[in-house]
Amino acid sequence: MVVLGSTGSIGTNTLLLCKRHNINVEAISCGKNVELLNEQISNFSPKFVCVGDEKLRGEVKGISKDKIFIGQEGLLDMLEVSNSKKVVNSLVGFAGLRPSLKTQKLGKKLALANKESLVVGGKFLDTSKILPIDSEHFGLKFLLENKTKPSRLIITASGGAFYKTPLKSLKMATAKDALKHPNWSMGAKITIDSATMANKLFEVMEAYWLYGIKHIEALIEPTSMIHALVEFVDGSTSAHISRADMKLAISHAVLENVDETIISHTNLLELKSIKFHNISLKKYPIFSLKEQVLDTPDIGVVINAANEVGVFAFLKNECGFLDISRIVLKAAKKFRDAKILNEDEIFKLDKEVREFAKRELNAKI
Amino acid sequence: MVVLGSTGSIGTNTLLLCKRHNINVEAISCGKNVELLNEQISNFSPKFVCVGDEKLRGEVKGISKDKIFIGQEGLLDMLEVSNSKKVVNSLVGFAGLRPSLKTQKLGKKLALANKESLVVGGKFLDTSKILPIDSEHFGLKFLLENKTKPSRLIITASGGAFYKTPLKSLKMATAKDALKHPNWSMGAKITIDSATMANKLFEVMEAYWLYGIKHIEALIEPTSMIHALVEFVDGSTSAHISRADMKLAISHAVLENVDETIISHTNLLELKSIKFHNISLKKYPIFSLKEQVLDTPDIGVVINAANEVGVFAFLKNECGFLDISRIVLKAAKKFRDAKILNEDEIFKLDKEVREFAKRELNAKI
Repeated sequence: MVVLGSTGSIGTNTLLLCKRHNINVEAISCGKNVELLNEQISNFSPKFVCVGDEKLRGEVKGISKDKIFIGQEGLLDMLEVSNSKKVVNSLVGFAGLRPSLKTQKLGKKLALANKESLVVGGKFLDTSKILPIDSEHFGLKFLLENKTKPSRLIITASGGAFYKTPLKSLKMATAKDALKHPNWSMGAKITIDSATMANKLFEVMEAYWLYGIKHIEALIEPTSMIHALVEFVDGSTSAHISRADMKLAISHAVLENVDETIISHTNLLELKSIKFHNISLKKYPIFSLKEQVLDTPDIGVVINAANEVGVFAFLKNECGFLDISRIVLKAAKKFRDAKILNEDEIFKLDKEVREFAKRELNAKI
Repeated sequence: MVVLGSTGSIGTNTLLLCKRHNINVEAISCGKNVELLNEQISNFSPKFVCVGDEKLRGEVKGISKDKIFIGQEGLLDMLEVSNSKKVVNSLVGFAGLRPSLKTQKLGKKLALANKESLVVGGKFLDTSKILPIDSEHFGLKFLLENKTKPSRLIITASGGAFYKTPLKSLKMATAKDALKHPNWSMGAKITIDSATMANKLFEVMEAYWLYGIKHIEALIEPTSMIHALVEFVDGSTSAHISRADMKLAISHAVLENVDETIISHTNLLELKSIKFHNISLKKYPIFSLKEQVLDTPDIGVVINAANEVGVFAFLKNECGFLDISRIVLKAAKKFRDAKILNEDEIFKLDKEVREFAKRELNAKI
């Protein structure tokens, strides 16, 4: 590889990476910092180097004099004699343009940190072949055509109707209170499930089944503008942002290829401050089952059955709000070793758990 | 298409979409809301309907009695007789499982809003073929395998060294002040370019050349955690989030296929509140050239040359901070009709602009 501007911030980081990945460094260049260049020569033994000025030639050490190129013309000559397939151009300013043009003319791949190359010469570069070294453009590329492996999925929760309700008031909360969801207008069952966080527990399981990744987290994002995030192995995180409107997901599911406006974009400037919070297990005890459901997904049948019994009893004012999580946790404990081997066993277990949950509720009342 | 649970919130939204896209609705179902079902029958003329209970049969209108199915078994029978290739399952609770299983057994595509199907029966569904109707899972899918067309690119700016400096203090700002960048440690040229926003103007041009989209915006995001966002035609926005560390972009440019950890993920819980702000053209007058550079990208040569003259004069204390934007704007105006027809013209124009900019600077001093 050739690294132009090897003594700058991008250049030194690039060489660190070359060291780590054992990438051969064929040629490097600097403007004035010959001291650092000499260090790099002794670390990487490049075949060629280039320095900014004839006066600096004598200061270059550890490489034979005929392998030292000088100035702007020297950079181009050095590119010409090098065999490398890739050139990292981290030169500063307009001076980066000629080496960029030359790199592509020689059929080498251009990894570009020198933004002036595009600013002044974008027209004469094959931009589809450029590998951008810039957080913004890398970020765009990542979002437009990402191929990196995901490492963790994160879904968000609004916190439901009781997000701001003090813990001690939950005991007496009624169905009417719980049905006031702050951000989404939905049916009764799912609104209660949002208030208990059973909904998010279910979504964690769904994400596992849909995307085959066990590393899943849920965080509270009170504005309901960011719905999902993916962490990738490299250290990137991406987020999906949209208005809270189900038309978007429905359109993609129904039409499959969406090439028109379904809803208006989130106005980023009008966004309330975005903050992420952990889900409090004190307030949302059902969510404490997350690791258990990811470890033994068969338990989903148990949790769902107990939850349905609890929610429908609560909606009919037959039990308190906290009784929902109480019987769900109780059922999850009692049936913790449940195994589902075929479809029929789902229905059998479902029935058994419902009976258990009803007995538990009645016993209390 | 078949829409199970057509009178709920997902169901009604789905039918709206069918209307808009002229999608045939072959069968619909409701639990109890026969009034709305009857409306839907008169609007969509489905071949089959299903209601939750035998007692409701008499209330269904506008369809012959033998096309009315009843209850859980009825749903399955209705699926059996329908020809549709796609089933939207927006039933509530455990009752959604059997129809989901049946849908896939019949070889139909399952668009799934009923989360309990996966929670209790994920093991027995071909999850790779499920189209999820849920903001979180749609969001994940979008981030993992998005195919939607982008409509606008957004890059972010930290605001540079003077983001919090009052406008009136900028006149006397020194190179030393300007070199204190809040979030990134970079070379002198780019740090000054960040303080004037020339850097972001350049990045807008780069994004245009790299991704071929003219609809580009830059917004200030003071934490430098979100680097880029893409707005897609459907109304989705995605964001790339990472620590401010160039190793990430460098690794992708150098290695191309990154399958290992380069930097640690942003800790979402430790994130400061994220807020986006417009770039103030009073404070960053250079950025007022954005529309001009996107309209006539050849002007990039002019802006870059004048900017380099200004920045290097400023770094040598030969001019004030505001002189940089002054001469850039002046050059952009004088050379606004510049046309670049071949590579040589870049170098000719660059030289001409530099001479102009130097004269302008000297004239002032």
